[in-house]
Amino acid sequence: MTDDLYERGMATRRAVLGDAHVDASLAAATDFTGEIQEYVTRNCWGDVWNRPGLTRQERSLINLAMMASLNRGHEFKVHVRGAVNNGVTRDQIKEVLMQVGFYAGGPAALEAFRLAAEVLDAMETA
Amino acid sequence: MTDDLYERGMATRRAVLGDAHVDASLAAATDFTGEIQEYVTRNCWGDVWNRPGLTRQERSLINLAMMASLNRGHEFKVHVRGAVNNGVTRDQIKEVLMQVGFYAGGPAALEAFRLAAEVLDAMETA
Amino acid sequence: MTDDLYERGMATRRAVLGDAHVDASLAAATDFTGEIQEYVTRNCWGDVWNRPGLTRQERSLINLAMMASLNRGHEFKVHVRGAVNNGVTRDQIKEVLMQVGFYAGGPAALEAFRLAAEVLDAMETA
Amino acid sequence: MTDDLYERGMATRRAVLGDAHVDASLAAATDFTGEIQEYVTRNCWGDVWNRPGLTRQERSLINLAMMASLNRGHEFKVHVRGAVNNGVTRDQIKEVLMQVGFYAGGPAALEAFRLAAEVLDAMETA
Amino acid sequence: MTDDLYERGMATRRAVLGDAHVDASLAAATDFTGEIQEYVTRNCWGDVWNRPGLTRQERSLINLAMMASLNRGHEFKVHVRGAVNNGVTRDQIKEVLMQVGFYAGGPAALEAFRLAAEVLDAMETA
Amino acid sequence: MTDDLYERGMATRRAVLGDAHVDASLAAATDFTGEIQEYVTRNCWGDVWNRPGLTRQERSLINLAMMASLNRGHEFKVHVRGAVNNGVTRDQIKEVLMQVGFYAGGPAALEAFRLAAEVLDAMETA
Repeated sequence: MTDDLYERGMATRRAVLGDAHVDASLAAATDFTGEIQEYVTRNCWGDVWNRPGLTRQERSLINLAMMASLNRGHEFKVHVRGAVNNGVTRDQIKEVLMQVGFYAGGPAALEAFRLAAEVLDAMETA
Repeated sequence: MTDDLYERGMATRRAVLGDAHVDASLAAATDFTGEIQEYVTRNCWGDVWNRPGLTRQERSLINLAMMASLNRGHEFKVHVRGAVNNGVTRDQIKEVLMQVGFYAGGPAALEAFRLAAEVLDAMETA
Repeated sequence: MTDDLYERGMATRRAVLGDAHVDASLAAATDFTGEIQEYVTRNCWGDVWNRPGLTRQERSLINLAMMASLNRGHEFKVHVRGAVNNGVTRDQIKEVLMQVGFYAGGPAALEAFRLAAEVLDAMETA
Repeated sequence: MTDDLYERGMATRRAVLGDAHVDASLAAATDFTGEIQEYVTRNCWGDVWNRPGLTRQERSLINLAMMASLNRGHEFKVHVRGAVNNGVTRDQIKEVLMQVGFYAGGPAALEAFRLAAEVLDAMETA
Repeated sequence: MTDDLYERGMATRRAVLGDAHVDASLAAATDFTGEIQEYVTRNCWGDVWNRPGLTRQERSLINLAMMASLNRGHEFKVHVRGAVNNGVTRDQIKEVLMQVGFYAGGPAALEAFRLAAEVLDAMETA
Repeated sequence: MTDDLYERGMATRRAVLGDAHVDASLAAATDFTGEIQEYVTRNCWGDVWNRPGLTRQERSLINLAMMASLNRGHEFKVHVRGAVNNGVTRDQIKEVLMQVGFYAGGPAALEAFRLAAEVLDAMETA
């Protein structure tokens, strides 16, 4: 089902995560995974990310903190890439994770720094 | 043990949470709870909150998202008050929690909205 | 914004949680909380709960297990009530929570039994 | 220590997870891991899984939701295999995970879909 | 079902939590909650707590850290009382919670200190 | 910034985790990860681990339980190594994880046993 919400979501998703990432996700979608992809595109990228009141940079900062705290390493890495695409600096990412260290504990921060460094290094050498 | 880090932490803690809240915490401290209070004042308020790279508003947004996601209701309410003191608007708090709804799940957002509304109402009628 | 998805969600939400609960939620909605209520009504009750493939009883069993595991006591109680309205028996609720005890740990189960008993007792004496 | 509870547990564990999986676990058991294996066989497979009130399919649905919500990827994959052995369909697994998406958040669902797809693909090509 | 494991569990449970607490739990048991009570008495108090290799004090220290980290306030308070009955000192409880502060985050520690202080004060004035 | 707290922390960190592990961490530190390393060395190893009231063995037992419960596999493995260096026996580690099994759930224990066995085997063959 494609409609305005889906189209808007797909545009935002591409702007934040990059065409390469989104094209790979779409190509990998099956009848098993296609509906969650659509659900995410519509309700997350189409709705939440297009709401007023916070900038994309602010939404990225918030997501990095949540994904690190909730121990969701795969999505954390996706959102490190998205944060950079949204203009968040390396130093801002570092600051979010230092704050994670106090509020969610040292191990959450150490894991997040390790994953973030992987993504940042990969983006620099790309 | 009071030193520069503690003094700076106490000043930041008072600026964010308000004198009334901090005075109550200090008055309630015992030999059992005094050291964690000092640890928090030094390492959280003295160190993390005084690091460069993020504004206080940004640090508040991040904390609201983490406390809501990690199900830490008491500290969430403390940081709603702190966010308002830092200049975060009611609409920005709403946007953080809408984003929590997608990324940490609906129940996390519903609980956080309920707690945030309590604090905001109490601050308005104070 | 009301539309088909919202209307269908409201009908399902009323069928599962009861008019009294939903009317109270709607009456309490403000400009701060109204949008998350609408988000939940549309995406949870309108979309997820109306998808084919699982019965309402099965969706209730799943929700009880998730809310108990994730330590979301308030929503757990809401869904105990919903489960009963969906035809889930007291014994089925007990079985879900016995299973929670092994997979999410004893304390998660003890807390959930305590909350479930409160709701079941209140429903019986109502 | 083998007794009725252990024997019944081993039979259920084999019926749900398959002989190949259980034989591999038993062969890998050491003096360090043997006791937790026995504890799980007795209390989980012997006791919980043989309680009346829920079908094996229902217990599988519940476990998938809990393992996905609690971020326990390894056990989640074990229980995807078990669910299929219990007669749970691919579409029912999809529905559980769509529901996880709303209640435990999008990242929990995306991770679970990825892991479930791996298991389902491996079972089909086996 | 009472047998050796149950009897041993009940004796340990009474030794750690006190007769008053256990008598109240038994008196409150219903057909809904009786089986989880029995499950806990047998598998936790009868089995785990009677295993060799760790002292009761060490098991109390570990439980306080786990309950504080997992945000299980009700059981945390039960185990503060149990820890004191097992000979754990006020200072040892403080040290566990200081360590929680670093590894599970400041909010987890602050919440645990608040709950522990309630229990310790109630035990002193009893 | 090196000072007494940092120096004491580095000495404790080396004593618990071993020179090889710490030298590798220091060699890998960048301008992105250097500050969290310093934060951990000072506040965790310099402060918490040097506080009186608990032995290093007790602090290791507590950490194993917390890391297993919070699903922090990487740090869990680091602390299995640290526990052995602190004189914690294989049987004591087993007992902590059996207790995790009841209080945090079977899957948490199974994962922790798997990771602990990897570390213990690697240390024995080293």
